[in-house]
Amino acid sequence: MKNVYLDNNATTRIDDRVVEKMLPYLKENYANPSSMYDTAHLTAKAIEKAREQVAEFLGLNSPKGIIFTSCATESANTAIKGVVNQYGSESKKHIITTQVEHPCVLSVYENLEKKGYRTTYVGVNENGELNIDNLLSKITPETILLSVMHANNETGAIYPVYEIASEAKKINKDIKVFVDGVQAAGKFPIKLEGTDIDFYSISGHKFHAPKGVGALYVKKGVLFEPFMLGGHQEGSLRAGTQNTPYIVALGEAAKLAMENMDYELTEVKRLRDKFETNILKALPNAKLNSKSSERVVNTSNIGFEYIEGELILLYLNDLGIYASSGSACTSGSLDPSHVLRAQKVPFTSLHGSIRFSLSRFTTEDEIDYAIEKVPEVIRKLAKMSPFQAELNAMGL
Amino acid sequence: MKNVYLDNNATTRIDDRVVEKMLPYLKENYANPSSMYDTAHLTAKAIEKAREQVAEFLGLNSPKGIIFTSCATESANTAIKGVVNQYGSESKKHIITTQVEHPCVLSVYENLEKKGYRTTYVGVNENGELNIDNLLSKITPETILLSVMHANNETGAIYPVYEIASEAKKINKDIKVFVDGVQAAGKFPIKLEGTDIDFYSISGHKFHAPKGVGALYVKKGVLFEPFMLGGHQEGSLRAGTQNTPYIVALGEAAKLAMENMDYELTEVKRLRDKFETNILKALPNAKLNSKSSERVVNTSNIGFEYIEGELILLYLNDLGIYASSGSACTSGSLDPSHVLRAQKVPFTSLHGSIRFSLSRFTTEDEIDYAIEKVPEVIRKLAKMSPFQAELNAMGL
Repeated sequence: MKNVYLDNNATTRIDDRVVEKMLPYLKENYANPSSMYDTAHLTAKAIEKAREQVAEFLGLNSPKGIIFTSCATESANTAIKGVVNQYGSESKKHIITTQVEHPCVLSVYENLEKKGYRTTYVGVNENGELNIDNLLSKITPETILLSVMHANNETGAIYPVYEIASEAKKINKDIKVFVDGVQAAGKFPIKLEGTDIDFYSISGHKFHAPKGVGALYVKKGVLFEPFMLGGHQEGSLRAGTQNTPYIVALGEAAKLAMENMDYELTEVKRLRDKFETNILKALPNAKLNSKSSERVVNTSNIGFEYIEGELILLYLNDLGIYASSGSACTSGSLDPSHVLRAQKVPFTSLHGSIRFSLSRFTTEDEIDYAIEKVPEVIRKLAKMSPFQAELNAMGL
Repeated sequence: MKNVYLDNNATTRIDDRVVEKMLPYLKENYANPSSMYDTAHLTAKAIEKAREQVAEFLGLNSPKGIIFTSCATESANTAIKGVVNQYGSESKKHIITTQVEHPCVLSVYENLEKKGYRTTYVGVNENGELNIDNLLSKITPETILLSVMHANNETGAIYPVYEIASEAKKINKDIKVFVDGVQAAGKFPIKLEGTDIDFYSISGHKFHAPKGVGALYVKKGVLFEPFMLGGHQEGSLRAGTQNTPYIVALGEAAKLAMENMDYELTEVKRLRDKFETNILKALPNAKLNSKSSERVVNTSNIGFEYIEGELILLYLNDLGIYASSGSACTSGSLDPSHVLRAQKVPFTSLHGSIRFSLSRFTTEDEIDYAIEKVPEVIRKLAKMSPFQAELNAMGL
């Protein structure tokens, strides 16, 4: 049975070298890093090493601003609620984000809306691109927070977050900028040092560390009300016994991601491009969603016109090819992707849009197999589609 | 070099069988449990099995009320903030807890105090016991939440939470009861089914699962505003990609804890009693904190009069014996334990109080070694104490 995993934006396989690094902390080195004895100092030291690795990964000169969390959802909740609880007031109740953010941002915004905050969600164009001037025009003296993702999980579109942050601060120097970097981390180099970004979140399981660990970068001097309240861990900014094995894993995964960055930008891109080119060539009803020139190199979001996405996934699953429609965090819902709706993908391909996402573990053989099988599946489903006339007209 | 780990209330060694169960989910079974394909169904199924194991561990007939979290701190934040955000209003702003709770409860209460909630912290007697009538007398029609721990992390004192919950509801049927069960789980059987407890939290790393995973039980029909906002995971009650390896670990650790319960209640108790009896016999300045008849069987909190606790820990550390003063979550602070202050432990032994906590991995040899070395250390430190006259009068 084939196992062609093309859903790396949902989660990735843990690198075996990451598992190896974790194991001593799952076995003999179990001391609570907050304890005072020698064995605890050992685990505390391992955490500080990981903090340095993550800081380097994010292009920072110092590990000081890195807070370890249990996931990127927690990082986003921490940043957004933290800013609002720290800086919000009767005259400061406006927060901005985009329509294409991950649910972990949008849900917090919706929650704050119910609590009396005024929210603005800026849209994207048909290519998935943000209109920066439009976004900046929404900033008022009342605005306390702007959240923009670095790369979109569904389409791979990259947003110019460094520029957005610096332009935003020219308009309102007090505004705080949170960037969800979950889909950027490991896919292209990140350089936060010297930028105007106040908060930046990453998730381990998107770059070959385990699920259940993330980090939040907080710029020096930026205050926020901590989200997870309790003990004094993480400089009293994130309570809860530190998860040494996964923090060590996150550090190692960050190191490996840096080492593999060239491979990612060349080989993973080559395989993605090979897949994409061949699928678009083979199928007249296949349209690339977000042809944006700035796109992460591992992602291909393709709309198959007049075909039902869930059926495509089912047939691909039976052939051992794993991909997704929308994000895993919204799966189970029958609504079409909020990201694709925001970029006004036409109804004809909205329901048949599939995200294929590669990783450094994706092989040429796997891509060749997918290039062979995806068109077979689409042609088979075309014969069952209620839109025979339309598909026939396209030559299917 | 000896390695006598007597700090199991801070954290425990992961059982090797738990590590074994996790490994497939750290390696080949990495699919996101929210995804739709076969490999994802496998991980989703493993999570549901763990949910059943945890439910059984908590004495529940159904796994439905179990929510997996990243730690007990998150569970406590979820329950307390969740109740307050769901039921709080201008006329419902009173919350009650005890003075001896863990920082993850006390910190949230302090935070809510700043946000306008009225808080009541009930004390304990010199034995560490709660006066139930006093506690119940604090309940008013305005009270929305009562938080009481099941067992104290520092002294091991057990509180009659089932009775407290049912009596509290007789006074105010709308009150919600949250029980921090972190130090109960694995130490004595828990039976939540049919009780009036609304929320109950546990932490994996206190019973031989890893740090970074916990659970929150929520009684059927009890609403709360979710804490971690984002995707639809955990029945939309806790967002964030599920940490399959650690959730599987938590389930396995729960199963093993049930299997080892008899051993815990007999052998661990025998070793703890042996240690305690011998230390109290050997040292005239040693006093047991919380002689409460209801006490978890693994914990011994002993005050060594006129001796500085940090020095005791340092000397024990050099001999390979690991214990603690206060909790790991408050360590680093020089303030004496809030728990011992609440039970009015006299100044003379407050600063010299040490918690020794055993587990099923503690051996008779280790206890014999500790019985030999602890008195040696105390006698040595007695010679350096500025309280020579007092110690001499005691025969030291």
